Amino acid sequence: MSFDGVSFDVGRVRRDFPILSQKIRGKDLVFLDSGASAQKPRVVIDAMVRCMEERYANVHRGAYFLSEAATEAYEAARAATARFLNAPDPRGIVFAKNSTEAINLVAHSWGRHVLQPGQAVLFSEMEHHANIVPWHLLKEDKGVELRVVRVTDSGEIDLEDLEAKLADGKVGLVAIAHMSNVLGTVAPAERIVRMAHAAGAKVLFDGSQAAVHRRVDLQALDADFYVFTGHKLYGPTGIGVLAAKLEHLERMPPFLGGGDMISVVTLKRSEWAPPPAKFEAGTPPIVEAVGLHAAIDYVTALGMEAIEAHERRLVDHAMRRLTDIEGVRLLGRAQDRGGVFAMATDYAHAHDLATLLDRAGIAVRAGRHCAEPLHTRFGVEGGTVRASFGLYTTEAEVDYLAEALTKAREFFA
Amino acid sequence: MSFDGVSFDVGRVRRDFPILSQKIRGKDLVFLDSGASAQKPRVVIDAMVRCMEERYANVHRGAYFLSEAATEAYEAARAATARFLNAPDPRGIVFAKNSTEAINLVAHSWGRHVLQPGQAVLFSEMEHHANIVPWHLLKEDKGVELRVVRVTDSGEIDLEDLEAKLADGKVGLVAIAHMSNVLGTVAPAERIVRMAHAAGAKVLFDGSQAAVHRRVDLQALDADFYVFTGHKLYGPTGIGVLAAKLEHLERMPPFLGGGDMISVVTLKRSEWAPPPAKFEAGTPPIVEAVGLHAAIDYVTALGMEAIEAHERRLVDHAMRRLTDIEGVRLLGRAQDRGGVFAMATDYAHAHDLATLLDRAGIAVRAGRHCAEPLHTRFGVEGGTVRASFGLYTTEAEVDYLAEALTKAREFFA
Repeated sequence: MSFDGVSFDVGRVRRDFPILSQKIRGKDLVFLDSGASAQKPRVVIDAMVRCMEERYANVHRGAYFLSEAATEAYEAARAATARFLNAPDPRGIVFAKNSTEAINLVAHSWGRHVLQPGQAVLFSEMEHHANIVPWHLLKEDKGVELRVVRVTDSGEIDLEDLEAKLADGKVGLVAIAHMSNVLGTVAPAERIVRMAHAAGAKVLFDGSQAAVHRRVDLQALDADFYVFTGHKLYGPTGIGVLAAKLEHLERMPPFLGGGDMISVVTLKRSEWAPPPAKFEAGTPPIVEAVGLHAAIDYVTALGMEAIEAHERRLVDHAMRRLTDIEGVRLLGRAQDRGGVFAMATDYAHAHDLATLLDRAGIAVRAGRHCAEPLHTRFGVEGGTVRASFGLYTTEAEVDYLAEALTKAREFFA
Repeated sequence: MSFDGVSFDVGRVRRDFPILSQKIRGKDLVFLDSGASAQKPRVVIDAMVRCMEERYANVHRGAYFLSEAATEAYEAARAATARFLNAPDPRGIVFAKNSTEAINLVAHSWGRHVLQPGQAVLFSEMEHHANIVPWHLLKEDKGVELRVVRVTDSGEIDLEDLEAKLADGKVGLVAIAHMSNVLGTVAPAERIVRMAHAAGAKVLFDGSQAAVHRRVDLQALDADFYVFTGHKLYGPTGIGVLAAKLEHLERMPPFLGGGDMISVVTLKRSEWAPPPAKFEAGTPPIVEAVGLHAAIDYVTALGMEAIEAHERRLVDHAMRRLTDIEGVRLLGRAQDRGGVFAMATDYAHAHDLATLLDRAGIAVRAGRHCAEPLHTRFGVEGGTVRASFGLYTTEAEVDYLAEALTKAREFFA
């Protein structure tokens, strides 16, 4: 099977994902919850199996073949992650357990160390809880101020509001979702970095959604911290990524203390290893790093541009099919958006609707998608049903969802 | 294949582990580094594959078949872990990324919240860095005192010293390795708990080594916190376990902030979910939990008593074969010990020796095994070579190691 990065044959791609041929309650699976977690292609599963069957041992400090092989595989995953993000230095890539831990690491080690009381952390109304709660905890601990930039009615970051909230120069960190997990909005990342840096603030992007759908170029973007997670990128659970400028990692104290992150330990004190080891205490996610590497190779071979183009077509199609269903309100209509569609209905509770769709084989998520404040912002109390796309999603699946939503209204009537 | 829990056929067991049939540099693999990380049986690998191929989705909040199935599998892993430890309540089982994170969680959320300046944390000279460095960090942050209980020349916890250091009632926490990853010493856990509780201290055991080799009965032991990790128990990387008394978890603030660990989030504040969710922010190690469950089922089917009996025979054999090799000094000769043998030699650097053994297909670790203070205690500057056993280790492998160590001395002469 060859991928030339230009053509994109979704039928062929789907055959790479074993789970997509499953029947669910006797129906073909229509998996529209990739924004929560994506399915895994055969190559990812095979790479993890091969690691465990043929090349497994703990990494670092092992002076034997299997440990050296595992260490090489682990560090090759770091190098591949750096290339994937066009990060300037693999030493700026820290493997965490998920995006949430990566953001907490920044809040703890950079936030508590560098930020001072009187300084502020600014995030947006469209953040996932993973990019809100760590700042709540930091505020309690350190007394920093929290500022929240507004989202417009169409679901875009309000850049005038951002400008105003940066104006006094007190913001130390701007922490923004690169792509909203509810609205699908893609934030104008380059512009946000320029505005933040001009106001003396560092920038963290939660790229959990965006890195899956767009090519990320960290050298062009110049973000200080960028976070994403393996399991949404068709890779394993149990591994997330913090990509940071090395200068930040060097001045940050460690987060977790333990093995592999120290250079000297006595009973009384410890000295830290240089990054990234300083932030990777204990046995790291070895098999998961190998799986993430395979996932990165997979999407790179398909071509991030080809994936983006495919998803753009899908999004356009979905905007046509999902926006004029009676009784269904789509949250967010940003100009630049990805394949996430959160819908509130006037005819059913989100959970009941999702349960009905499940009977038709459609997997969608119901609730507030770890973004309660955003649902409040859009006046949705009971939650939404969210359809989110992967590279294996088809226009036919979007049509099937649209038809099911129409029928559901009759059902609940 | 049936396991009756009494007989233990190591030849049959070895066939369950695909990697053990590998040739390394043309030699049969003699894997003696299970203390760093154990190999995985077919059933663990298969369970992870099946999860990703047939039953994968993100857990919790999904109102569709695959998500419900994944949630059930994830929570079933928690229940199995509770049964494995005879923990009183599955809600006391928190999944972390590794043992190190689990100990840091206790240091951060319990240590910073409950301990007061003037109180002390007591650990031993035989601790792994994972059970030292978090307390260094806590000391810096919170000003608690650190006390270190001595290890005797034979490698046992000095209980008189422990008694003396508990006497003033200022120790808030005793944190001890249930089994040393260097000396093999099994700590007298029940006695330590009784002594600590009598002095008003809580107890944490780092069971990373012990839980693999012995049946742990948390209800009988009455430990406050017990930690172990998946990858040493023939399970996946990327998952560790904190088992804690529910009363402690209930009063502890969260460690990481993010999705799934809150009950209410507004832009200004968060309310926490009850444990264990409070401590599991973000997407958890779903596939890894399924793999850990399979590993627990595997060792339970073999029988922890049968595993222990097999390893006791191995340890006895190794004590005969490894203690009278000229130029080789074994660290630790505790009465109650498991299958970990750290050896210092007078004829070669540990790393060079391990490299030579690798040529013979023998995988051992060289260095200080994340236990620098213990090596200092035993006057070993250059590190040791450590052989550590798994349930698949044979007496023939121990003989082969002993012969190789004898030949190595001639080689380096």
